[in-house]
Amino acid sequence: MKRSPAIRLVLALSGLIVGCGPSFPQQTGATQDSSALRSLDVIDADALVQFSLLAALAAGDYGGGAPLSEVRKAGDFGLGTFDRLDGEMILLDGDFYQVQADASVHRREDGNSAPFATVKFFNEDGSFAEVSAKSLLELDQWFDRRLPNAQIPVAIKLQGRFDELTLRSAPPQTPPYRPLADVIDQQVTWQRRNVPGTLIGFRCPKWMGTLNVAGYHWHFLSDDHTIGGHVLDCRFKGATAAYDECATVTIRLPDSQSFENIDMTDVSEADVNKIERQRTAN
Amino acid sequence: MKRSPAIRLVLALSGLIVGCGPSFPQQTGATQDSSALRSLDVIDADALVQFSLLAALAAGDYGGGAPLSEVRKAGDFGLGTFDRLDGEMILLDGDFYQVQADASVHRREDGNSAPFATVKFFNEDGSFAEVSAKSLLELDQWFDRRLPNAQIPVAIKLQGRFDELTLRSAPPQTPPYRPLADVIDQQVTWQRRNVPGTLIGFRCPKWMGTLNVAGYHWHFLSDDHTIGGHVLDCRFKGATAAYDECATVTIRLPDSQSFENIDMTDVSEADVNKIERQRTAN
Repeated sequence: MKRSPAIRLVLALSGLIVGCGPSFPQQTGATQDSSALRSLDVIDADALVQFSLLAALAAGDYGGGAPLSEVRKAGDFGLGTFDRLDGEMILLDGDFYQVQADASVHRREDGNSAPFATVKFFNEDGSFAEVSAKSLLELDQWFDRRLPNAQIPVAIKLQGRFDELTLRSAPPQTPPYRPLADVIDQQVTWQRRNVPGTLIGFRCPKWMGTLNVAGYHWHFLSDDHTIGGHVLDCRFKGATAAYDECATVTIRLPDSQSFENIDMTDVSEADVNKIERQRTAN
Repeated sequence: MKRSPAIRLVLALSGLIVGCGPSFPQQTGATQDSSALRSLDVIDADALVQFSLLAALAAGDYGGGAPLSEVRKAGDFGLGTFDRLDGEMILLDGDFYQVQADASVHRREDGNSAPFATVKFFNEDGSFAEVSAKSLLELDQWFDRRLPNAQIPVAIKLQGRFDELTLRSAPPQTPPYRPLADVIDQQVTWQRRNVPGTLIGFRCPKWMGTLNVAGYHWHFLSDDHTIGGHVLDCRFKGATAAYDECATVTIRLPDSQSFENIDMTDVSEADVNKIERQRTAN
């Protein structure tokens, strides 16, 4: 929530000179000007910014998405996935990392894209010392007892040495894309022990439903950037955690035919829970 | 969608110097800085900006809300309601109007507040000439056949002479507030004929569920600012309509104890439909 006016101003100005994207096709019987949807103008420094909807991803809208150069304008901290569902995305201190299904971690510059991402500029509102948890569920419950206002999204950055981590990623998909709940059986999981690193997480309120992951969503990156992934379980002692409340939720909608056509009506919170929390046997 | 860089820059700069609001109470076991939630930083000129959630309003969160001075920064076109559910709000060409339950229309300056509002800077993306409809339902269907991308919110401004209008407003409520579906039986409706004026509307996609009104939501203001309200039905010929697609949805969350505590779990789309579309016998 702390704001750096200089940085925000640069963002605002850079947003103003971003060009226009493609416009919608001319409508029969309508006149339409030459301006167009979807350049990223300016960002509220206190906003959680999400690109597309988790429901659209869950329904199989894995192709393309927002260029990382656009995502970068909306935050320096966050998580998501890449074009074709090719691995887990971590955005930490302004740098993008891709954790592929072979457990390899790659720093990514612009030139890739995110069909789904949740990011923000991390500005600490409060912190906790000596955070310990024997499981991810215990960690979620620990924060539930301490974080303010359950109706407001919160970003959480937790740093420490992890005694144990269960991580996952997924292999890239090929069209025609199947729903995420089907694809998730292809996820690859692995365990690591005694790793110093950072949990990158969000808690979204219940009212966000399937727009995002209601409840907690955690990705991990080791300090040496060699280990990462979507977190299915973890155990650690004596970590420190900072949190940042989001007064605003901003949803950037994809400018794609696939998003226009995707059918999200069958995506339930139960599906999302299966996708984000279930450990499969592999 | 057309942007005026000068105006956007002024908005961005004015946003940067907005002060901080009240902070959350200190958390046990947490350190917390002195920065705080909820000043309105900067606005994406292509965003639909909503203050609070329709589900929260439907559940009875009628008190206070966003100061009109904040709402004004987020758009020049829109609709909503006022503190204590005291009438229908219209924002047109940057001016606020309040239509009370006695059918009177009042221009409102800052100093009032909106527990719920949906606004944007109206920048025409396309237009239609010779729009005619024998009913509101027919109007909605007319736009459904012609507007692009049903997954993207659209603002619609329709100007013409209205042969017939059925309008409504609601009287102010007193705490403890009852849910909107109960209160709506107190709505007052009236009919007017042969009135030149403007329909102020939004079409929200299905995925917005109860965050806003999925489907169409229309308010009306006459050209002479003496007749207005929430539109339950209308009939007109030869109107002109302009629309503005919203690449971004921005939700500004209330900084209130009542929002923190409101239970939205029982609000359904059927409730919202009843609230927004039902004509009662009075």
